[in-house]
Amino acid sequence: MENNQQQETICAISTPMAKGAIAIIRISGKDALTLASQIFRTHTANIQARKAYFGHIFDGEDILDDVLLTYFQAPHSFTGEDMVEISTHGSLYIQERLIALLIEAGCRLATPGEFTQRAFLNGKLDLSQAEAIADLIASQSKAAHHLAMNNLRGQVSKKIALLRDKLIHFSALMELELDFSEEDVEFADRKQFSDLLDDIETEIVKLLQSFQSGNAIKKGMAVAIVGKPNVGKSTLLNALLKEERAIVSDISGTTRDTIEDTIQLNGFLFRFVDTAGIRENADVIEQLGIQRSFNAIENAMIILWVVDKWTPQDLQEQYQSLFAQTNLSDKKKFLLLNKIDTAQEQTGNIVFEDFSTLPISAKNNVNISALEQQLSTYAQSCYESHETMISNLRHYHAFENALQALRQAKDSFSNGLSNDLIAVDIRQTLYFLSEIVGEVSNEDILSEIFSKFCIGK
Amino acid sequence: MENNQQQETICAISTPMAKGAIAIIRISGKDALTLASQIFRTHTANIQARKAYFGHIFDGEDILDDVLLTYFQAPHSFTGEDMVEISTHGSLYIQERLIALLIEAGCRLATPGEFTQRAFLNGKLDLSQAEAIADLIASQSKAAHHLAMNNLRGQVSKKIALLRDKLIHFSALMELELDFSEEDVEFADRKQFSDLLDDIETEIVKLLQSFQSGNAIKKGMAVAIVGKPNVGKSTLLNALLKEERAIVSDISGTTRDTIEDTIQLNGFLFRFVDTAGIRENADVIEQLGIQRSFNAIENAMIILWVVDKWTPQDLQEQYQSLFAQTNLSDKKKFLLLNKIDTAQEQTGNIVFEDFSTLPISAKNNVNISALEQQLSTYAQSCYESHETMISNLRHYHAFENALQALRQAKDSFSNGLSNDLIAVDIRQTLYFLSEIVGEVSNEDILSEIFSKFCIGK
Repeated sequence: MENNQQQETICAISTPMAKGAIAIIRISGKDALTLASQIFRTHTANIQARKAYFGHIFDGEDILDDVLLTYFQAPHSFTGEDMVEISTHGSLYIQERLIALLIEAGCRLATPGEFTQRAFLNGKLDLSQAEAIADLIASQSKAAHHLAMNNLRGQVSKKIALLRDKLIHFSALMELELDFSEEDVEFADRKQFSDLLDDIETEIVKLLQSFQSGNAIKKGMAVAIVGKPNVGKSTLLNALLKEERAIVSDISGTTRDTIEDTIQLNGFLFRFVDTAGIRENADVIEQLGIQRSFNAIENAMIILWVVDKWTPQDLQEQYQSLFAQTNLSDKKKFLLLNKIDTAQEQTGNIVFEDFSTLPISAKNNVNISALEQQLSTYAQSCYESHETMISNLRHYHAFENALQALRQAKDSFSNGLSNDLIAVDIRQTLYFLSEIVGEVSNEDILSEIFSKFCIGK
Repeated sequence: MENNQQQETICAISTPMAKGAIAIIRISGKDALTLASQIFRTHTANIQARKAYFGHIFDGEDILDDVLLTYFQAPHSFTGEDMVEISTHGSLYIQERLIALLIEAGCRLATPGEFTQRAFLNGKLDLSQAEAIADLIASQSKAAHHLAMNNLRGQVSKKIALLRDKLIHFSALMELELDFSEEDVEFADRKQFSDLLDDIETEIVKLLQSFQSGNAIKKGMAVAIVGKPNVGKSTLLNALLKEERAIVSDISGTTRDTIEDTIQLNGFLFRFVDTAGIRENADVIEQLGIQRSFNAIENAMIILWVVDKWTPQDLQEQYQSLFAQTNLSDKKKFLLLNKIDTAQEQTGNIVFEDFSTLPISAKNNVNISALEQQLSTYAQSCYESHETMISNLRHYHAFENALQALRQAKDSFSNGLSNDLIAVDIRQTLYFLSEIVGEVSNEDILSEIFSKFCIGK
């Protein structure tokens, strides 16, 4: 896959572009050491791989900086090419000047993600692993980090390898039959074929289903706090965030727009959305807020329905006005009986549809930690319910396409179409799976993926 | 100088605290390798110094990250202690978690500048060199970088060593005389003594004089753009900045407050201050702006006086209203004859006091590059006029104190006071000089200095 671009030696600042104690400049390409040596002097001319050398970077006659230089010899480097890492004092002037000197020496400034792209092109990692590096760097929570790390370790890649093996096995049998078609032998019975396809379909569907959780773990699980005006939704948000994030008052409709903030519970990131209270006869501005509340319900994985009255009739009415428009079946739902410490009513054993009921007092912090516990238990169960989890939209679409092609194959098969037609659909399925790990790829896809990386990675 | 604090092994994130491709975590202290090894696994148990090892950081059973670890053995490290550098993926989660794991293992989080402080305490560099590292990291221009690099290379330290040698030589002679005082011998003639003191005085005065330039090179040379309203000051600022920074109009008094911005010319940083036009009969708000203009003149190293009429009487009147209150003798002064392209008057050979005259058109970019050239030439001459330059306020105060003590010694000497009294003043002078390089220091001074560093340095 080597091309002209890859012939060039690239350089970039790999640490964040800011003033700091230390900065790292990386160089990759066949001339990495030769070009770096033009401006670097140390006590020896014989630089060995993987050893840190103290020396000076020269800017003409002047010393630009005292640095440490480490050389990594191909293929034993991140990119698989010859690489040099220079550790400098973290002044912006030094960082920029060093890059300018390297460019004068003959390096080219790396594009975003170009180091990782080269690692991919040189077979150091597959495409889904390369993408996992970007996720790893962006990860904010323990769970997101764990997910990215599993993908970097090749969890998705291994799953795909498994699916492909099964498909290739299937194809092989089909083609064998084709070769001997005149003799009308069947090497595998129809049942075995059909089971294999069902099997693969089930696995792809499971992966597709894992995307919602995977994506939520990566970006934070959306939790909508909903209810009638003035039941204490903003007070609950503040109690969960442990700060006065939302303005709280006794006046109905204090919160007009949705307010979002994130917290981590037990290593999971949650994205709480406090919504405007939903009621009839709202004015125009409030009405806009209410529409956003409905959107928040729609997009949430978890619903916190806050009430301060819980007679059956009350609950039924509120349920209608809040949830009539939405399909709640995939969501985790809590019914929070708020203001429990001042409640006149008996709480007893309130059951409402498939909501989990919890009496709380947002204001006086009653049962808030129990709620947090239940939220993180739910997140944990989402995480554990999928052996392999996808969290990347590109992978999701590729699996969708693979599923479509596979179902086409199943249709052809059950309709008794000829083996060579079925083989086309199977090849199509294989193609989409290969796209995920980058065994088939094109320039556009690659540049789309790697342009989202930071410079220097 | 070792104390309990230094017994502890410290750790910190040494790259800027942000998401990036790579982050560096540094560990320093006698247990650096032992503590790091508790969470790091690689292919060998035998880690050699100065070699980069690829391996994994473990967070319990899970892999936190794939990293490179390099061990530096005391005393061949930045701090002079055993050190470990770990290069991780630059996710904030990984950086923070790794620090947490190191703290669990027994490290302490480093305070700002603590690595450099240890380098100082272990004799790897003196105090003025340690301070030069902070300046180096903060340097924004080529000249500021050069100045800091010279100080890191020990330029100030060498100068002080020279001055101290002379003083010690002087003391030795004095004390020798004291020992033989009964015999009434003089080992050096009075003239030689007095010349030596004069010599040292001259050198300290020169260093003190270099501070204004040194500080200006470090922080940017202040340039005040002044003149009557509507002569084109803001247009000139924009022409120098090559952008529409200040609002420009035909209405007198458009600029009311001072506007500041910096540019680099030929490696020097300039801090331009566009001021309100100075005129009589200004309203109250304008009056406040005018007061700021006077302050800007006072604080500037360079004055750009912009005029659009230049009859002798005009110039004389304006000069009075602009500069009557200020001592201009130390400043570089330019008289800029603006709107030259539409000027009715003859420019000829206009001479006004010791101002350098330059006809320009700010609007049409006439002679702006000539002005830039003259500004950078002046900065260059400032830089070159001092063999050694100080740029640190602490050094300046210490030299001031040393000068005062030295002058005391000179007085005592010329008044014929006894040698042991003079010796007290000389010791005092030596004390202040030693303070600069940190040979005498106390906890307060050190913590004052190092607390201004970034964490991780």
